[in-house]
Amino acid sequence: METIEAIDVRNEHWSIDEWSHRIDKLLDGESATAVFNVDEHDTREYDAIFLGGGAGGRFGSAYLRAMGGRQLIIEKWPFLGGSCPHNACVPHHLFSECAAELMLARTFSGRFWFPNMDGVTTSIKEMVDVFKRGRVGPHAIMNYQSKEQLDLEYVVNAAGRVIDAHTVEVAGRRFRAKNLILGTGARSATLDVPGKDLKGVYTYESIVETLDYEPSETVVVVGGSKTAVEYGSFFSATGRRTIMVVRTQPLKLLPDGETRHYAVTRMKEEGVDIWEGSNVVEIEDDGTGRVRAVKIQTPGGIERVETNFVFMALGEIPNSEMPVATLGVKTGSKGEILVDEHLRTSVPDVYAIGDLIGAPMEMFKARKSGTYAARNVMGESIAYRAADYPDFLHTHYEVTWVGLGEEEARERFREVIIIKMPPDSPDGWNVGLPASDRTMLYAFEKMPKSGFQKLVIDGGSRKIVGAHHVGYGARDGFQYLAVLMRQGLTIDQMGDFDELFLNPSHFIQLCRLRAGARQLQNL
Amino acid sequence: METIEAIDVRNEHWSIDEWSHRIDKLLDGESATAVFNVDEHDTREYDAIFLGGGAGGRFGSAYLRAMGGRQLIIEKWPFLGGSCPHNACVPHHLFSECAAELMLARTFSGRFWFPNMDGVTTSIKEMVDVFKRGRVGPHAIMNYQSKEQLDLEYVVNAAGRVIDAHTVEVAGRRFRAKNLILGTGARSATLDVPGKDLKGVYTYESIVETLDYEPSETVVVVGGSKTAVEYGSFFSATGRRTIMVVRTQPLKLLPDGETRHYAVTRMKEEGVDIWEGSNVVEIEDDGTGRVRAVKIQTPGGIERVETNFVFMALGEIPNSEMPVATLGVKTGSKGEILVDEHLRTSVPDVYAIGDLIGAPMEMFKARKSGTYAARNVMGESIAYRAADYPDFLHTHYEVTWVGLGEEEARERFREVIIIKMPPDSPDGWNVGLPASDRTMLYAFEKMPKSGFQKLVIDGGSRKIVGAHHVGYGARDGFQYLAVLMRQGLTIDQMGDFDELFLNPSHFIQLCRLRAGARQLQNL
Repeated sequence: METIEAIDVRNEHWSIDEWSHRIDKLLDGESATAVFNVDEHDTREYDAIFLGGGAGGRFGSAYLRAMGGRQLIIEKWPFLGGSCPHNACVPHHLFSECAAELMLARTFSGRFWFPNMDGVTTSIKEMVDVFKRGRVGPHAIMNYQSKEQLDLEYVVNAAGRVIDAHTVEVAGRRFRAKNLILGTGARSATLDVPGKDLKGVYTYESIVETLDYEPSETVVVVGGSKTAVEYGSFFSATGRRTIMVVRTQPLKLLPDGETRHYAVTRMKEEGVDIWEGSNVVEIEDDGTGRVRAVKIQTPGGIERVETNFVFMALGEIPNSEMPVATLGVKTGSKGEILVDEHLRTSVPDVYAIGDLIGAPMEMFKARKSGTYAARNVMGESIAYRAADYPDFLHTHYEVTWVGLGEEEARERFREVIIIKMPPDSPDGWNVGLPASDRTMLYAFEKMPKSGFQKLVIDGGSRKIVGAHHVGYGARDGFQYLAVLMRQGLTIDQMGDFDELFLNPSHFIQLCRLRAGARQLQNL
Repeated sequence: METIEAIDVRNEHWSIDEWSHRIDKLLDGESATAVFNVDEHDTREYDAIFLGGGAGGRFGSAYLRAMGGRQLIIEKWPFLGGSCPHNACVPHHLFSECAAELMLARTFSGRFWFPNMDGVTTSIKEMVDVFKRGRVGPHAIMNYQSKEQLDLEYVVNAAGRVIDAHTVEVAGRRFRAKNLILGTGARSATLDVPGKDLKGVYTYESIVETLDYEPSETVVVVGGSKTAVEYGSFFSATGRRTIMVVRTQPLKLLPDGETRHYAVTRMKEEGVDIWEGSNVVEIEDDGTGRVRAVKIQTPGGIERVETNFVFMALGEIPNSEMPVATLGVKTGSKGEILVDEHLRTSVPDVYAIGDLIGAPMEMFKARKSGTYAARNVMGESIAYRAADYPDFLHTHYEVTWVGLGEEEARERFREVIIIKMPPDSPDGWNVGLPASDRTMLYAFEKMPKSGFQKLVIDGGSRKIVGAHHVGYGARDGFQYLAVLMRQGLTIDQMGDFDELFLNPSHFIQLCRLRAGARQLQNL
């Protein structure tokens, strides 16, 4: 049993600010001090130990505690909340905001109050540093909120070791519980090519931890899905030649072809250099252990690109090795722990949640699977399976969708009605609509950049079966739109809503223009 | 009967681009040419003539036409769509985008890629000119869409004159219909003080038509409601000392006190100088018919402010004079035409819609009242009254709300639960949340600027009775949230939605953190 320092914070009531300072020190790694927030006076057995205090563990714990149960989170990092605020969704949002703002600044370079951006490369490292300086704030809020507002018990800054389905050891202490809920997340996959471990090869995790130089004027991004596109768009927006090496095509996850075409066309216009049907085959060492160049197999042969910066975004691998080794839980083909609809693993009293159970590795699923596991542990018998959910990603824009693309809708329904903006017209994209949040200047001065949006409707039932948006400000709405679509939302109901004009998605008013007709028509 | 030139465009099929050129010429006023798009081969009597082709007339026409009826719009301007794209919501959104971007640029002045904004005043006139150059695009889309996609009949660029409840004369021709639907809108109220007609005194209508100089370093805004705050925030963001002269308090229309306090505090921080309890008593002439200064009655006495620019935003007066004179329709205390729930005026077969029927003078009400009038005309008996709708305005931020503020909720319900971000904490506003669309840089570097959001919940029924948001990107969502709240949305249902994290409003996940408890608590 390893010896580790420990402090008991149960009777401390640190402010958010105080937590910030404490977490900063623990992250600096000066000491391996486990932080115990455990109620020694509570004699009840724990209903569940959550191994991992990320989104699933924290939300599951909050729900279980609110139901009157007793829980314990064990988390290796010195904070709750998991990878999202530490290296995943929060930095991604910061960098995507930079991408959007830089596109605006470059579009209006030297005009109005915008600086002249011709030939200007902005710093990647500076924005990474902004993130690193500030990320402890959200961390502190999680610890503060979880302790002072949600009344959770937790041990942080110490890795838990599973002894059996009811026992976890942490920092020299053993804790027993009626159930064990595994939520240890996932990590970035990397490409197994020569040079993959050189300095200069990053994932979204390592870039925020270890980037200590300014990437060269050319950078290479490997992959074509969400993370690749989000970071690639940011790198490109800084003014760098950004080559995206994509095995097949980028953004295949977008269900609507026309929307995908719009999004990809704008990325290309902004300078992202997309190499389809290509693979990185080697990363060259400069002789000092750093990246010097990348060799890429393209449809036209091997190309060599000089760069000191390679970003890999090839998906996620569940961190299932430890529970598999100690408990023998069953896993699927991608290493994900297999669970039933009650989030139960193959081992009695052991549940698994979050990214650890595989796709979709999204925040809502992590959090909801945590709360559903908690409810099952507390005696409810309640099923959860992520389905019919909205989704989004960032290019320089925010891209949001829910339901079917036009293509799949045409396979399923006899009559498909399309309502979109801008309209099909002889002038193509050269119209000043759509226009709304953050696209007003584009709508007036650079019309094709003002966005694209589309509704897919089953003409027979009049139900809205798909919605797609490229622009800004539609994401919150899609959360609720998804709920209404599950209720069977029709064009007639949509057309009777109260729009807040200029609404980022013009769906309500466009539906109203057509809803009067028995036989629906495109718009 | 006045003689007027006329052209028949029924058999023309102009593109959006072609319409742009045509409307531009007509707006230049080179000739008073009425544009007829009338189907001379249709022998049916019109079901309705819409007097006014703004939001209400156009949407009402589209709905009536879709139902199989025959309609005619008569519109004095050379385009359909009304004041919104010409001088109201569209320029407001353009200027509010500038305000948001300028706040960002000033906050990060000289950092990252932002220019040094110290002491920089940006041009108001240039942005007005951007709007004027581009506004014909949306106009063109409306004419194109109405003719080519919606199959509407219209006469534009010619004022209609009501002869009786079934007859309107336009450009020398008389048209008869079974019904008349009045939708002639509203115009800005102005303050009746000495100097009100001097050059340099503007409303939102006249600023885009006649501003031909750069306003001075100090400007005066009269009023404290939506339009005053929206334009005042823009003027202030350009770097000008902006004095808002407010009879009582600004933003009284925001139902939640804490949200209002946050919004007003940020306005003041951005430099808006709010003079409460004050009135403009005189606008001084510089001797050439231009504004030189404004005299303001304040609680501490008369103050004189030197400026060449005064912006009045004192609400709207319905354009009801002509129908009152010709038809004798009854009006209310504010000049609005009185209608019943079927949009019927006091005169048989005459309906009224839009801003002409008074508050709320919002886009959704204009459009929806148009479609409901159309449905009644076409034989449905269907009631419409705007209620329980969401609302928004811009400061430098987007401010959105629906339902009750905390104060009114506490009057109505025994137990009120508040869920908000940032949380009440010893560190007040100095936390990096909320964070999302367009507030990521603030969240990391200027925390109190990263927004405020709040849910008001009836603890007894667990229903969400109010939602309030200052930030960006929540507006689309509030449209749908309002629908779900009308259905009786509870904290439990909200907590079960699928969030798109970092969602601009953090409501879904915050609800989930509390929903497990029988006895709800604040968060």
